[in-house]
Amino acid sequence: MEFVIDKESFDKAISDVSRAVSLNTPFPILTGIKMVVNKSCLILIGSNSNIVIEKIVPLSINGKKVLEVVNTGSLVVPAKYLNEIVKKLSNDIHLIVSGKQRLTISSANIVTNLNGFDSQEYPSLPETEQTENVNISSQALMEVIKQTAYAVSMSEHRPVLTGINMSFNQGKLTCVATDSSRLALSEVKIDSVMSGSVNVPSASLKELFKLMDGDPGEVDMLFTKSHVVFRKNSITLFSRLIVGKYPNVTDLIPKESNTIVTLNTNQLLRGVDRACLFAGEWKNNNITLEIKESSKLKIISSSSEIGEIEEIQNISHLIGQTELSITLDGKFLLDVLKVIKEEEINITYNGPMKPLLIQPLNNASHLHLISPVRTY
Amino acid sequence: MEFVIDKESFDKAISDVSRAVSLNTPFPILTGIKMVVNKSCLILIGSNSNIVIEKIVPLSINGKKVLEVVNTGSLVVPAKYLNEIVKKLSNDIHLIVSGKQRLTISSANIVTNLNGFDSQEYPSLPETEQTENVNISSQALMEVIKQTAYAVSMSEHRPVLTGINMSFNQGKLTCVATDSSRLALSEVKIDSVMSGSVNVPSASLKELFKLMDGDPGEVDMLFTKSHVVFRKNSITLFSRLIVGKYPNVTDLIPKESNTIVTLNTNQLLRGVDRACLFAGEWKNNNITLEIKESSKLKIISSSSEIGEIEEIQNISHLIGQTELSITLDGKFLLDVLKVIKEEEINITYNGPMKPLLIQPLNNASHLHLISPVRTY
Repeated sequence: MEFVIDKESFDKAISDVSRAVSLNTPFPILTGIKMVVNKSCLILIGSNSNIVIEKIVPLSINGKKVLEVVNTGSLVVPAKYLNEIVKKLSNDIHLIVSGKQRLTISSANIVTNLNGFDSQEYPSLPETEQTENVNISSQALMEVIKQTAYAVSMSEHRPVLTGINMSFNQGKLTCVATDSSRLALSEVKIDSVMSGSVNVPSASLKELFKLMDGDPGEVDMLFTKSHVVFRKNSITLFSRLIVGKYPNVTDLIPKESNTIVTLNTNQLLRGVDRACLFAGEWKNNNITLEIKESSKLKIISSSSEIGEIEEIQNISHLIGQTELSITLDGKFLLDVLKVIKEEEINITYNGPMKPLLIQPLNNASHLHLISPVRTY
Repeated sequence: MEFVIDKESFDKAISDVSRAVSLNTPFPILTGIKMVVNKSCLILIGSNSNIVIEKIVPLSINGKKVLEVVNTGSLVVPAKYLNEIVKKLSNDIHLIVSGKQRLTISSANIVTNLNGFDSQEYPSLPETEQTENVNISSQALMEVIKQTAYAVSMSEHRPVLTGINMSFNQGKLTCVATDSSRLALSEVKIDSVMSGSVNVPSASLKELFKLMDGDPGEVDMLFTKSHVVFRKNSITLFSRLIVGKYPNVTDLIPKESNTIVTLNTNQLLRGVDRACLFAGEWKNNNITLEIKESSKLKIISSSSEIGEIEEIQNISHLIGQTELSITLDGKFLLDVLKVIKEEEINITYNGPMKPLLIQPLNNASHLHLISPVRTY
């Protein structure tokens, strides 16, 4: 194996696949990055027990030559050192296998030798026989993930709840996440008749988000029995699936309403953020929302030891009863308000012991439920 | 106590004094900030067992009114909550003592109550009977601290070595730090005939650096039996002194030289940084510097497990013997190179087991010594 590569392209590719590499693995070879060079490209692979990231560097990018292959071949090289060395080099970088599993990396007057592993011992990738395949805009996919990922369960008590449930049905992708105290649901139209449902670990989707967010384009989703695969241009992320039946959540969403209050999203976000200052010291970050006259919302939080905070905000609009009083985890409400881009939201209230429904105004594609906290 | 204060000025002052406040103190009152309001200013004080920071907010700053005093008084308020609340408010902030040690903070429609402590119970500040007083440019003081602070000892085995020794003699301030393996010495002229020597904890000087760096002006240094006081405009830092006799280091500085090599500072910094990649895995971050022909310096580091790195750099100039070979802690050399602003340095070599002397070219005001590592 011998090739010369542009520093910037190499550095970016190594950083991308390194996201999947953990130094705390019982398998030394998984601390490495697998490099495969063939006539037309360099393939880098990094993996852990949950995800695999594969990145392809072609011979040229946007007309600029970035890779010159002298000899094809493959090797697994420690990710940490490869990453750090390449960051600290400049110019073009020359790589050659100079001995048994030994890689020589040189640039200008700097010569480095790294001991690697036999690439034959690296685990093989999941098979992607493309039985099912969905194509979706990257931006839309990132949006539905962002709007639900905050609500996944942190407890391994019910493993399926630690993932996002992605279901495909009648030309729609629906993402659902819940930790039993709150629920997030977000939908997007897709150009596919596929139907089915998978539970994807939220950690995998967070990595996907970091890899692909902000970059326009299309994502191909492929499904195997045990994996979901996201492919976009030169980068591919394989994630294991969580086995188990996801609970049916549609019955939880309230159909009626005592009161619907329209509020400015950012104003409420800032108010709840302030109220959470004290709430953190209290059990469950509790804050109380209260309406007594129809035009004002009161946000209250107190801790007998430290003090209390009380804030009055204007309401844009109110339908139904003008009485509202609910105590909930302020942190949960913050999480919801942070993922809503719309300027205004509707809050649907059905009583102090019923879940509060939060939805962006004039956008039915996502909704958020928070269970109240019993205060007596 | 009642006053109205501009948010920005209040926020900055609270942040400054909060630097001295630790939440892990056995004395609850020290988790608070002492506020004293008199007719002409607000005084904020934060402290821990090592330092006290005092900040004065006057009635107006640069002609802009920032403080309106309604009633004088004092109170101690939990630093953490005061800090966070004020950051999240806007506009002018109104503060009033509304009950027994209870502070009401209000701004627009937001009202917060904080439980405080009796200010009578707050420890009093060290007396600064100004027997001795040195005035020094802030920039020059920051420079001598920066050039020596990296070399203080991290071990409490010999407490004086955890501080910087500041000695005043014949119109000069000399700062020295050493951890027995390396030594830094930096001098600056002062307009004072004072003579004497104090050991200042490096942690205090790091706080001083954060408080006062980048801000031109003069610093007044005052000395009490147990404290040194740095005062600049509206801010004062009191630091305890370390008791004990600082070792005499002048004999350690080599007077002769086998070889003097002139090198580009940044080029060497980058080379040593690269060599340290592997050195970190090896005992003491060892790297080897080697000259065999007079025009080239070789930087070598290796780890039998991981690999090795070797780099060749040009030498600007060489006086004396053209043979050099020394192994030292690469991290120590990096620390030195990071505090040298000059473009070129001189390295004075007296043999593989003698300390290496590093000095900026044409600037005798500071010098750095690093002991070699025994490699056999």
